[in-house]
Amino acid sequence: MSNVMPAVVIREPGGAEVLEVRQVEVPPVGTGEIRVEVATSGVNRADLLQRRGGYPAPPGSPSDIPGMEFSGTVEAVGEGVTRWKAGDPVMGSVGGGGYARYVVTHADAVLPVPVGMGVEEAGAIPEVFLTAFDAVFLQEGLRPGETLLVHAVGSGVGTAALQLGLAFGARVVGTSRTEAKLVRAAALGLQHPVLADAAWPRRVREVVGEGGVDVILDLVGGPYLEGNHQILAAGGRHIVVGVTGGARAEVDLRALMTRRASMRGTVLRARPLEEKVALTRAFEERALPLFADGRVRPVVDRIVPAAEAAEAHRLLEGNETFGKVLLRW
Amino acid sequence: MSNVMPAVVIREPGGAEVLEVRQVEVPPVGTGEIRVEVATSGVNRADLLQRRGGYPAPPGSPSDIPGMEFSGTVEAVGEGVTRWKAGDPVMGSVGGGGYARYVVTHADAVLPVPVGMGVEEAGAIPEVFLTAFDAVFLQEGLRPGETLLVHAVGSGVGTAALQLGLAFGARVVGTSRTEAKLVRAAALGLQHPVLADAAWPRRVREVVGEGGVDVILDLVGGPYLEGNHQILAAGGRHIVVGVTGGARAEVDLRALMTRRASMRGTVLRARPLEEKVALTRAFEERALPLFADGRVRPVVDRIVPAAEAAEAHRLLEGNETFGKVLLRW
Repeated sequence: MSNVMPAVVIREPGGAEVLEVRQVEVPPVGTGEIRVEVATSGVNRADLLQRRGGYPAPPGSPSDIPGMEFSGTVEAVGEGVTRWKAGDPVMGSVGGGGYARYVVTHADAVLPVPVGMGVEEAGAIPEVFLTAFDAVFLQEGLRPGETLLVHAVGSGVGTAALQLGLAFGARVVGTSRTEAKLVRAAALGLQHPVLADAAWPRRVREVVGEGGVDVILDLVGGPYLEGNHQILAAGGRHIVVGVTGGARAEVDLRALMTRRASMRGTVLRARPLEEKVALTRAFEERALPLFADGRVRPVVDRIVPAAEAAEAHRLLEGNETFGKVLLRW
Repeated sequence: MSNVMPAVVIREPGGAEVLEVRQVEVPPVGTGEIRVEVATSGVNRADLLQRRGGYPAPPGSPSDIPGMEFSGTVEAVGEGVTRWKAGDPVMGSVGGGGYARYVVTHADAVLPVPVGMGVEEAGAIPEVFLTAFDAVFLQEGLRPGETLLVHAVGSGVGTAALQLGLAFGARVVGTSRTEAKLVRAAALGLQHPVLADAAWPRRVREVVGEGGVDVILDLVGGPYLEGNHQILAAGGRHIVVGVTGGARAEVDLRALMTRRASMRGTVLRARPLEEKVALTRAFEERALPLFADGRVRPVVDRIVPAAEAAEAHRLLEGNETFGKVLLRW
């Protein structure tokens, strides 16, 4: 193969126009690693932050190539790798560098593409399903019969959390500021769609009653904090995976005490390799089978050519997408 | 025995002067319950709140008799109680009614007074040691070698958390606004006393370095929140058991995300009986042996006659006490 490959590069911090396709060096494969020929690269909100200069890549990832997930086929395997061989369809989450024709990652940090699923579509799985699974199930221990509130239910993480919550037997309430997204979420099984206007805490209360909400998966942050803590159940858990609405808000500690409730922040990126591997393996065991039998599925808004990465970023910034936008190589 | 007993009663919501000793009915013993002749009743900050009208007793507790803990000797046992007999020295945490000559509680919600300890002194144990043990170990899972930060380390809960942290192999940093309390905490084993002036977060950082603090036990609340979240380690846990400084503060959700940190509120009071019993039994197994061998001990500021309950409240309000104030019956 050639020693160079196309990648989407951040020319300088700025708007979507700073993204451009360049030829860069193909990354070498080390011991325990695999190189994947990428079919699609998922676009995430964190990529937009990184492009604007606000979210640098962690050590070990390229500083100027965004992209935290991919699907594709194994192209080369490093020393000591026994699980994968060239041609295997895989998908995975990475710290950066995902917007490229080839990605190198640790062999234990990837997942097989679910049986029966196209490899392009699978690029919509890793980041959002791992994030939702880790936050809601591994960290907050959502139990069957509990109530899960998913904010921004039409987002990538939102549609993943909704489906996983239903598959694991929870009651799911979802909010969106857009009626049309609630209609689409209902088609995915959302039992309790709630319009996120100023009265959303009252609307959620009407659905859940005095018992309240057991787990809140929050991608909005500051503006929803007071409402979130009003509707938490005794022993409720509020986990923040995004702050698209703003990072700061006033918190009432007495409300948390009275409810014996918790609030937690989390990110996947920049975790040590051993934690990423542990999460990937837990997901493979408990969540991946749900794709094979069709109970959950990636939600793809659209797939655009990688050369149109700037347009993909504008789509996310416009808040009009439902599910994931992918770049095709 | 007589059908009446002395108890400290809240005449009406207000200052310390509204507390008065009255003759009230001795509570009857039900199935599975015991009645205890109280030696000492612990005074807690929550009692001050209740006296001022801000913290009503939970259902099942007397509305006008404060007091959330006691030690004494078993006076009567209800049907079905096999563990205790009249004369046994016991101590326990209750939802209310602790400022009285007799207390009725569930037989499984009390602990034996540690071997070799006077029954009066034991009244300083239940509320603060159960609170600290539950918050730091059961809820936040502090591990040996981790760093525990205890605010208001000279308080009842603070001195309990300090000793338990040391006994379980943690590194303990403690803050107080009073130098003299830090000196006394050092005599209890505190390795890292920190004066809680405006620069306390910097001082704590100098002690703990870049690694940060793993668990924060917080009795102060709002004013310390920003500093607390600045010095949390990756995976750090901040648990709030009191808000003497105020309940509201601005929180930076991105700081929690970056650190993958959590904040939790908790109270012992008003938990369902089965949870109180579970906590009491876990404490008996894991913490009570530490008293028998002298590694931890109740810290008693002073014991005053129950008739001087108003003076005891003034002492707590003056913030000059170190450890617990007890009422003697």
